Amino acid sequence: MTIPNNPPIPEPTIKRLPWYLSYVNTLAEQGIENVSSTQISKALSVDASQIAKDLSFLNVKGKTRIGYSVKELSECLTSFLGFKREHRAVIIGVGNLGSALMQDKGLAKFGLDIVAGFDTRKEVIGSCIHGVPVYDIAEIKEREAELNACVGILTLPVDKAQDAADLLVDAGVKAIWNFTPRRILVPEGTIMTSTSIYAHLALMYNRLEALSSDEE
Amino acid sequence: MTIPNNPPIPEPTIKRLPWYLSYVNTLAEQGIENVSSTQISKALSVDASQIAKDLSFLNVKGKTRIGYSVKELSECLTSFLGFKREHRAVIIGVGNLGSALMQDKGLAKFGLDIVAGFDTRKEVIGSCIHGVPVYDIAEIKEREAELNACVGILTLPVDKAQDAADLLVDAGVKAIWNFTPRRILVPEGTIMTSTSIYAHLALMYNRLEALSSDEE
Repeated sequence: MTIPNNPPIPEPTIKRLPWYLSYVNTLAEQGIENVSSTQISKALSVDASQIAKDLSFLNVKGKTRIGYSVKELSECLTSFLGFKREHRAVIIGVGNLGSALMQDKGLAKFGLDIVAGFDTRKEVIGSCIHGVPVYDIAEIKEREAELNACVGILTLPVDKAQDAADLLVDAGVKAIWNFTPRRILVPEGTIMTSTSIYAHLALMYNRLEALSSDEE
Repeated sequence: MTIPNNPPIPEPTIKRLPWYLSYVNTLAEQGIENVSSTQISKALSVDASQIAKDLSFLNVKGKTRIGYSVKELSECLTSFLGFKREHRAVIIGVGNLGSALMQDKGLAKFGLDIVAGFDTRKEVIGSCIHGVPVYDIAEIKEREAELNACVGILTLPVDKAQDAADLLVDAGVKAIWNFTPRRILVPEGTIMTSTSIYAHLALMYNRLEALSSDEE
């Protein structure tokens, strides 16, 4: 299967597809063989017509009155989302979050293979976390030449995050996945994805505040 | 300072404010006393007029030709974003990610105080992770009556995520912070925030794919 580049897949669609995947995988574990978009719609509270539109980007066809094959839909979504391909990644900053990601077997199942960690702290350089070696950040360029990672993950202290991103881009990494609260700038042609834990916290607090003032 | 509820703060603004905070905190550490919106704009690649608009939601005034006081802006942002108030949280699923969050001192600095973990696995129930006790998920309702947490964090396997969310809501939690790839449904009046690690991965892979087909 190839990913159609024309028309481009809308970002909200790409963000919803993992919901469908997670749901059909649960059905598969329960031995359920077919699922309709109405069922998916009820379970996930997404409009059925939106689901049909989202799934139209995939090479998967439902059958009248039967719906989609759970197995086929799961395989198709997994492949379409890139979770079947191996994406080699390095992680900068092996603190709590960094080492948790290195130990997370889930990421490998979702196509992300963390092949090395980097840090500045002498006590972790030279160690292995869950079988993954930790190197000195000063060696990143020469290490990357061997490692050939396409993704660099930032889980280091925020004041060093931009410098680390610059080093990663210079070393040849194609995509940065930023877990720090800092906005990271990258040159055009480098892919930037942020998982803004602290922004999500701020949003949650703001809604909690609004909720409690509504209740007053 | 009170948070103005009228007009409501736009979500994109709330998501950008942590960038400004992170940047001014870095300036503060460097002993810099004042910053202009032009400087923030250059450092973070956000339009200066957008920054002024975003900061207009706060009770902070810049001075002509001097700009904002770094210390004042930092305090104002921290307080406005709710990072100074204590929000008690419980975490459901103390696997890799769950225990990493329990050990993350950063979260406490950002107003999140994780007071307990819950799990189903006998080998972790009764243990302490970084001084935080881990209880049996079956006890959640009685424990929550004492713990009085307002936030429930989901870091458990995806097929149990909706059940855990239902338990949390039933126990009186006001907000759910979901780290699983599953879409979680909550009753109206409960706040739902998702940090969709796998959706971010899918988005990154999709852009990487587009990048490599551009290069061909």
